[in-house]
Amino acid sequence: MSDKRRLGVGLIGTGFMGKAHALGFTIAARVFDLPYEIDLVSVADVTAESAEAARARLGFRKATADWRELLADPDIDVIDITTPNLMHKEMALAAVAHGKHVYCEKPLAPTVDDCAEMLAAAERAGVVTQVGFNYLKNPLIFLAKEIIESGEIGDIRSFRGVHAEDFMADASIPWAWRLDPRSGGGALADIGSHMIACMRHLVGPIRSVLAETVIHIPERPVSRGATETRAVEVDDIARAFVRFDSGASGSLEANWIATGRKMQHDFEIYGSKGSIVFTQERLNEIRIYYAGDDVRSRGFRTIWAGPEHPPYGAFCVAPGHQIGFNELKAIEVNEFLDAIVNGRRPTTDFREGYEVQKVLSATYQSARSNRWVDVG
Amino acid sequence: MSDKRRLGVGLIGTGFMGKAHALGFTIAARVFDLPYEIDLVSVADVTAESAEAARARLGFRKATADWRELLADPDIDVIDITTPNLMHKEMALAAVAHGKHVYCEKPLAPTVDDCAEMLAAAERAGVVTQVGFNYLKNPLIFLAKEIIESGEIGDIRSFRGVHAEDFMADASIPWAWRLDPRSGGGALADIGSHMIACMRHLVGPIRSVLAETVIHIPERPVSRGATETRAVEVDDIARAFVRFDSGASGSLEANWIATGRKMQHDFEIYGSKGSIVFTQERLNEIRIYYAGDDVRSRGFRTIWAGPEHPPYGAFCVAPGHQIGFNELKAIEVNEFLDAIVNGRRPTTDFREGYEVQKVLSATYQSARSNRWVDVG
Amino acid sequence: MSDKRRLGVGLIGTGFMGKAHALGFTIAARVFDLPYEIDLVSVADVTAESAEAARARLGFRKATADWRELLADPDIDVIDITTPNLMHKEMALAAVAHGKHVYCEKPLAPTVDDCAEMLAAAERAGVVTQVGFNYLKNPLIFLAKEIIESGEIGDIRSFRGVHAEDFMADASIPWAWRLDPRSGGGALADIGSHMIACMRHLVGPIRSVLAETVIHIPERPVSRGATETRAVEVDDIARAFVRFDSGASGSLEANWIATGRKMQHDFEIYGSKGSIVFTQERLNEIRIYYAGDDVRSRGFRTIWAGPEHPPYGAFCVAPGHQIGFNELKAIEVNEFLDAIVNGRRPTTDFREGYEVQKVLSATYQSARSNRWVDVG
Amino acid sequence: MSDKRRLGVGLIGTGFMGKAHALGFTIAARVFDLPYEIDLVSVADVTAESAEAARARLGFRKATADWRELLADPDIDVIDITTPNLMHKEMALAAVAHGKHVYCEKPLAPTVDDCAEMLAAAERAGVVTQVGFNYLKNPLIFLAKEIIESGEIGDIRSFRGVHAEDFMADASIPWAWRLDPRSGGGALADIGSHMIACMRHLVGPIRSVLAETVIHIPERPVSRGATETRAVEVDDIARAFVRFDSGASGSLEANWIATGRKMQHDFEIYGSKGSIVFTQERLNEIRIYYAGDDVRSRGFRTIWAGPEHPPYGAFCVAPGHQIGFNELKAIEVNEFLDAIVNGRRPTTDFREGYEVQKVLSATYQSARSNRWVDVG
Repeated sequence: MSDKRRLGVGLIGTGFMGKAHALGFTIAARVFDLPYEIDLVSVADVTAESAEAARARLGFRKATADWRELLADPDIDVIDITTPNLMHKEMALAAVAHGKHVYCEKPLAPTVDDCAEMLAAAERAGVVTQVGFNYLKNPLIFLAKEIIESGEIGDIRSFRGVHAEDFMADASIPWAWRLDPRSGGGALADIGSHMIACMRHLVGPIRSVLAETVIHIPERPVSRGATETRAVEVDDIARAFVRFDSGASGSLEANWIATGRKMQHDFEIYGSKGSIVFTQERLNEIRIYYAGDDVRSRGFRTIWAGPEHPPYGAFCVAPGHQIGFNELKAIEVNEFLDAIVNGRRPTTDFREGYEVQKVLSATYQSARSNRWVDVG
Repeated sequence: MSDKRRLGVGLIGTGFMGKAHALGFTIAARVFDLPYEIDLVSVADVTAESAEAARARLGFRKATADWRELLADPDIDVIDITTPNLMHKEMALAAVAHGKHVYCEKPLAPTVDDCAEMLAAAERAGVVTQVGFNYLKNPLIFLAKEIIESGEIGDIRSFRGVHAEDFMADASIPWAWRLDPRSGGGALADIGSHMIACMRHLVGPIRSVLAETVIHIPERPVSRGATETRAVEVDDIARAFVRFDSGASGSLEANWIATGRKMQHDFEIYGSKGSIVFTQERLNEIRIYYAGDDVRSRGFRTIWAGPEHPPYGAFCVAPGHQIGFNELKAIEVNEFLDAIVNGRRPTTDFREGYEVQKVLSATYQSARSNRWVDVG
Repeated sequence: MSDKRRLGVGLIGTGFMGKAHALGFTIAARVFDLPYEIDLVSVADVTAESAEAARARLGFRKATADWRELLADPDIDVIDITTPNLMHKEMALAAVAHGKHVYCEKPLAPTVDDCAEMLAAAERAGVVTQVGFNYLKNPLIFLAKEIIESGEIGDIRSFRGVHAEDFMADASIPWAWRLDPRSGGGALADIGSHMIACMRHLVGPIRSVLAETVIHIPERPVSRGATETRAVEVDDIARAFVRFDSGASGSLEANWIATGRKMQHDFEIYGSKGSIVFTQERLNEIRIYYAGDDVRSRGFRTIWAGPEHPPYGAFCVAPGHQIGFNELKAIEVNEFLDAIVNGRRPTTDFREGYEVQKVLSATYQSARSNRWVDVG
Repeated sequence: MSDKRRLGVGLIGTGFMGKAHALGFTIAARVFDLPYEIDLVSVADVTAESAEAARARLGFRKATADWRELLADPDIDVIDITTPNLMHKEMALAAVAHGKHVYCEKPLAPTVDDCAEMLAAAERAGVVTQVGFNYLKNPLIFLAKEIIESGEIGDIRSFRGVHAEDFMADASIPWAWRLDPRSGGGALADIGSHMIACMRHLVGPIRSVLAETVIHIPERPVSRGATETRAVEVDDIARAFVRFDSGASGSLEANWIATGRKMQHDFEIYGSKGSIVFTQERLNEIRIYYAGDDVRSRGFRTIWAGPEHPPYGAFCVAPGHQIGFNELKAIEVNEFLDAIVNGRRPTTDFREGYEVQKVLSATYQSARSNRWVDVG
């Protein structure tokens, strides 16, 4: 029915992110002029039942309880990994070994060594990779990057970033995989990694960090309602000072016990001629200040996403109608597919996942040593 | 591959709304447990080329330059009409005559008589209908309705509603079908109809109106850049005072020349015990005030959409991540399909489209007579 | 101790506004280079006790229970009237007859005839007058006026104004002088008069109005906690459509039962090249949109009051520190004194109070007749 | 004219803060039932001319170019110091030696030793002292403190504070006394000291800090427009992690080159049961979140200052009218006078100034050593 090449997708994991990825592929296929016909081939989950349930719901053709089945499937070109990050490496390496392109949720893996191994394998295999730093796939973040690079707001001097939510704020929330120290960390690894990616994306490479981590809820029930508790060993809050290669300075907070916050992925960027303020709480708005505006009518401009901010127009021809989180995933998919067909690197590929992990690792190392730590 | 009954869709029109509807069906199929397997059968547009282009892009199986072909197609159960409203009646009547369910963009038709004819035909045929008052399909509007009906904010005394955008603010924008008086009106019919639907949805039936309409740009180029102009005969701005059956009073403004506004679909509802403030500019937030809160810490609560506001959870399990305009369309589709399978009336079916049109018509009549006009 | 001429002030009324005026004089004397040494001579209130209490507190030299004593006092140059508006005329006429300048709270008087009589008397006597439309004395409103007059936002097409508070929202609030129909009206006269003054100030003379008034709480206790009630005969809410001499159209709502609103004195002004949005809820901010800004970084600019917006700098040399309501009164005083010394008319003198009253009167007349009414 | 005891004030310095203090005394005398009749006796400035100019403008009786004259003046009870902080110690010690109460701008002095000496002298002399941490004198900050202390938002876990402005953002702004390293520091000392006081006020004593300071503009013209430059040795930006005695963790940024920011004195306080968010950019609003609110209508409450938040009602009987920066100074004055008459310690006396200085000092020490430093 189409002249396009088919691109087969095998999805591993069907939770929050599994569904978001499936939606991302589905929406991308409708709004972008994709280079491929997307074929949602098969979905793997921990049980046959959950896999089958997801298959029907998410629009895949096949389902399995054994993710390795996807590797051997000749119809599958892309392995899409949305499992907890402890499992990313094994899956990614296997996928790469089978010559599959890999789309993987963030953070890439628990350690820098893991990431390096994944990166090296992917580069050797020549496959295209993508990591799910979805907040960067916002048309207004593209605008921010363009404005920074154009020099419109001058030299960037300082950055202030926060990623705070409250999904762990209630001390009765039980211990879970996110708290497993083998995952590579707590709030910083889980949500702070988004902000590290953002800092690198907008202000450039990070040279060194000085950090602290805090555990405010030292133990949690082993399961919902249990009286037995298990010690928490990973950070509820991580804070870091950051020095960029450019000379800009900055700070970062990752916090998953910020009562009342649902999506405080915020940053403020101050340049010598202007500034940019953003919060993911209102992902369709960005605020830009130009010091050069007429002094009496100078102020932060609140800009609504519209067709003048590609690829917003792919979703809606009229400004101000707003895109949602799932549509950021569609932009992520589009970038990935564009990279596959053109042999380009997506901006957030495994190399970027590896670079983010180096910052993460240096941050945790600094928090332990209480000293400035150079990034890799 | 599925036990579900198939539901075939035939789409007429492939512009802004045509695409939004296609996305609505596609997204709905992934996030809701729909009663049907959606089959995007065929799409019709004015030329074979544009229809074919849309077919590939929007995921339909077939394309045609003759919308009547859809009527005869036995695979098609639903005719989806996204053309200018001047064409709605002919298409809807034909669809109904073929026993098809009809999903139609707003406003339903240019006149009350048109709407009445469409409604009568649909009811005679026993088909299910849906009108695209998409802003009502917001989880937070459902919350507002629930809070109002629960009595939490007491008796509703007053309503203030605005739907303002600026897509016609530039006087050099040429004359187009929106300006054709046969369409049934200007800003009020085009965008104000959304606010009329909102008033009825949240505060109930409207008894009478006192209105004015204004044309601020009396002529426009016949085409982009042309020096020849054509007179504008429809409202750039319409304003109305409104009296509800409940005794509540209110006002409405529709304005398509509000420079700087992209989606100011705003309302404020004041009750005897609280109030609700909303703007579509931030569709994932709503503000609620409870007069009964402790006086020293009393204030408008800014509530972020989350899983506690169904069906937000169908799109994302985490609060604050935000849904977009296209996802409102998916909720609209879900309601429609649920109605088809259960034989229920959607809240915004042809009857509601007809009721909205009666208010529209009374408003224009009042603007001409400068008198209070009872709504039909 | 000073070379300046002394200006003696006699204040009538010591409530909310009496205190605000006393503060206005006191603050003005410190921040502005006033042409006079202010001498707070005497204060009058209904009882000797309340007058004496106010004297000490507000910084006057003398106190009296007989406001007429102020008239004969040779030390007094200005009579400052802050009583309910039913009493303004008698007091103002008496003051004028004694050759005193008059500073009077708004609205000027209950009827147009009253205002006309006061205006004529003041003009005959050649005294300077000022009416307390304090919200216009905001440095950012001065900015708005300047921007409109400069043509920066093009031709003004539409205006939307609201003055809503909730001080009467609770039905148990007892009947009081504000509800006395002899006062000339309810919400519209009391608080809507501020918005009428604002419309005239920023968009110019009003040619005609079409209005409605509503009473949502038809009776109130005769006193706090009483079971006996008294009928309410004045508007809880008034709404009007407005046509300006310039051709601009607009609307106005006055509402004193808007649960949750404390100071929603808001307006939006849409021009052909830009727009201005303001709310008194944040009196130190104004939002301006320039359609001519670069399309991708165009948005409402949020401007903070600062020294570049005179006379903000008189209060604080640094921007963003914020002035308060009482300081608007100090600006009002400064303008009044400047007018006295220079023989100029303040922008909100009795003539303006009279013009506002004509709009008020036409609005009430329209609400009774349900027809467009020309403004005097 | 009054039975009250007189309190004579001698002011040193007539710049930004000198004027704000004079206004503070003047306004306080009108709105509060002060225990004293305020007598603005004498003002000292660097030249006789500037002193005399300020005398007339600010309402003092006498003027002098020699601040020591104030010490000997028997009419003067309070010495009010608003000079650069390098001069505070000498002046304060002299005032104390003459048995005068002292009202001094922040930060108290450049070093902890200076502050300790000043504190010891004041305590020995038994005089009352006040330091100008004016942002704490906000009715809504009193509310925040009360809510925290009541336990309503549970145990405080984390704090995030910023004080950012842009008055030094332009690299062409010349070198000035604020940049003199003998002043005890740059942005942190100058504006960050406000945030340190805020942290201590709301969350309690600070145990230790880990900090960094950055100079982004390493040299500035020696005077406006000069080509000769002088090296900058003090911080443009200072950042610190903070550990409170309570176990709460937090962070602080002081930044005077934050382009576009005029008064970003912001904090967010996260507790186990709620949170508080404030920005001085909107000093009449505070946001409070209660985790215990009904889940579907739970959100940050935006609370407007009103009479239910003492002492707002002293300035205005109606909520939402807003107080300004100068009125915070009046509250500061009122607290000071109340302390004098009642022999109480103001919350922000020299002891508090000394405690803040210890945190400041530890922060700078940490920035030099790159290690956690215990606060004194």
